[in-house]
Amino acid sequence: MNEKILASGNLQIRRFFNLDTRAYERGALPAKTKELLGLVASMVLRCDDCVTYHIVRCVEEGVTDAEFFDAFNVALVVGGSITIPHLRRAVERLEQCRGLKKASRRSS
Amino acid sequence: MNEKILASGNLQIRRFFNLDTRAYERGALPAKTKELLGLVASMVLRCDDCVTYHIVRCVEEGVTDAEFFDAFNVALVVGGSITIPHLRRAVERLEQCRGLKKASRRSS
Amino acid sequence: MNEKILASGNLQIRRFFNLDTRAYERGALPAKTKELLGLVASMVLRCDDCVTYHIVRCVEEGVTDAEFFDAFNVALVVGGSITIPHLRRAVERLEQCRGLKKASRRSS
Amino acid sequence: MNEKILASGNLQIRRFFNLDTRAYERGALPAKTKELLGLVASMVLRCDDCVTYHIVRCVEEGVTDAEFFDAFNVALVVGGSITIPHLRRAVERLEQCRGLKKASRRSS
Amino acid sequence: MNEKILASGNLQIRRFFNLDTRAYERGALPAKTKELLGLVASMVLRCDDCVTYHIVRCVEEGVTDAEFFDAFNVALVVGGSITIPHLRRAVERLEQCRGLKKASRRSS
Amino acid sequence: MNEKILASGNLQIRRFFNLDTRAYERGALPAKTKELLGLVASMVLRCDDCVTYHIVRCVEEGVTDAEFFDAFNVALVVGGSITIPHLRRAVERLEQCRGLKKASRRSS
Repeated sequence: MNEKILASGNLQIRRFFNLDTRAYERGALPAKTKELLGLVASMVLRCDDCVTYHIVRCVEEGVTDAEFFDAFNVALVVGGSITIPHLRRAVERLEQCRGLKKASRRSS
Repeated sequence: MNEKILASGNLQIRRFFNLDTRAYERGALPAKTKELLGLVASMVLRCDDCVTYHIVRCVEEGVTDAEFFDAFNVALVVGGSITIPHLRRAVERLEQCRGLKKASRRSS
Repeated sequence: MNEKILASGNLQIRRFFNLDTRAYERGALPAKTKELLGLVASMVLRCDDCVTYHIVRCVEEGVTDAEFFDAFNVALVVGGSITIPHLRRAVERLEQCRGLKKASRRSS
Repeated sequence: MNEKILASGNLQIRRFFNLDTRAYERGALPAKTKELLGLVASMVLRCDDCVTYHIVRCVEEGVTDAEFFDAFNVALVVGGSITIPHLRRAVERLEQCRGLKKASRRSS
Repeated sequence: MNEKILASGNLQIRRFFNLDTRAYERGALPAKTKELLGLVASMVLRCDDCVTYHIVRCVEEGVTDAEFFDAFNVALVVGGSITIPHLRRAVERLEQCRGLKKASRRSS
Repeated sequence: MNEKILASGNLQIRRFFNLDTRAYERGALPAKTKELLGLVASMVLRCDDCVTYHIVRCVEEGVTDAEFFDAFNVALVVGGSITIPHLRRAVERLEQCRGLKKASRRSS
């Protein structure tokens, strides 16, 4: 679907997408920290798709379960109980990511 | 003002305040990372008082200017131009913090 | 899914869940009023899962349809037309709750 | 300032203001409960002016301090620590209201 | 489902729905501009159902693809990357609308 | 203050500011319509500084009072009564803009 948006010929939307990608690349802060920032921002703004995206990236950057729950806890305290349904789905996604990783390791 | 809230005798509010304090203590993630998480969460939710609080704490944890701007950029991209007035005030607060620190170092 | 979150061993998240449960227990305000507060807060923040939870609890506390629509109206006026899709789903959930209650009464 | 808005001749805005006023009048739910709903909705949406308005009205409807703090606690748990600066100002407003009431009682 | 809400007998909710309909009728601003306002407001508040409704209406008012993407871009810049999943679904809905229109033109 | 942000050397923030400026330039939609989109988006997201900015720009683009109130009404219906304090301040800003314009015309 991103391809369709990018194919729309709207140069500014394309530039925004580029800025979005680059915001999480290693800079003064490591990529891992930036992905955790994106994760917590997405949780307090309550966007499941964005949370899923950053969980996948955090797993790739080697975030441990204990670190994930530390970040989830900050999001929960800042954003309140209204974030709980998103927290539930985040934990579910994290389990799926861990499961997929194990499965692919076993099959290789 | 917090004292008045705590003096209200509402035990649950007191417990919430306690959880709020503890969420930023060193755990699996270092305190510095947690404060950055609190800072970005506060910026995308657009709360100037919360942003100021986390800037002060981030400065105490040794966050550099380049690291601050990396975090500001994540908040700006996630939260959009609606966060710009808060970004402006955040930069102002950061300058004040740096100024105060220099002043106190000089006078000691 | 809550079990998985609670099993994560993150003590602070567990404490938050406990505060969340206790916030709706009878205190100076009756449980019925507190559940209505939770319902309206959930509607203006537009969280369907939270709305469903508080509708179930409000039905248990004996909230009548006329009282529900009074509360829905406050949420609609405060939160605006952006809450209408959530209002629709809330009315649907309420009907299901009423239906289930009648069905279980008949079968007993 | 409301007068200027109403004088703008925009009939629909005038009708909205009318709906806003009527939403808190006694219906199936008493005015006191409706004002508490408005208070908590305003706190989780973090609007200080709206919070002040509903505190004044709640005081008029005889809401006690213990009841206020029960409602504040629901707002805090639902909305998270991002509501704390608004909670602080709410407690300040409540104290001012109580003070004014005592002063006016003494002078009468 | 709207019928059920309207059938609830709550006069104020009915009046709100009426105001909601009339807000997009031609006034000092043309209906097309008002629908674009509704579309962008719905995107930055991230309500897919509302976005879909205004896309359908914008198509009826003759909004071109280039105009849609101009509006999407304003929403994206104001609301940030958190609106991207909603932007994706909006583009999908727009394609469906265009497809349905072509299909109905062909069959007539 | 923008100068300080731009002077921070963070290239990505500078690019975001550039996208923000360009989003309101004439494209498929005229600048006037785009500024109205920015105004309504800012009102429903409740950012007074952003609202003020777009009011100034809308006045420059020749938006009439009746058109402003049509746009305000859309924002009010979509965003609900929680936007009323911002609507009040918006009307105040608009009056100031009109006053300044008259004054400058008289003095020239």
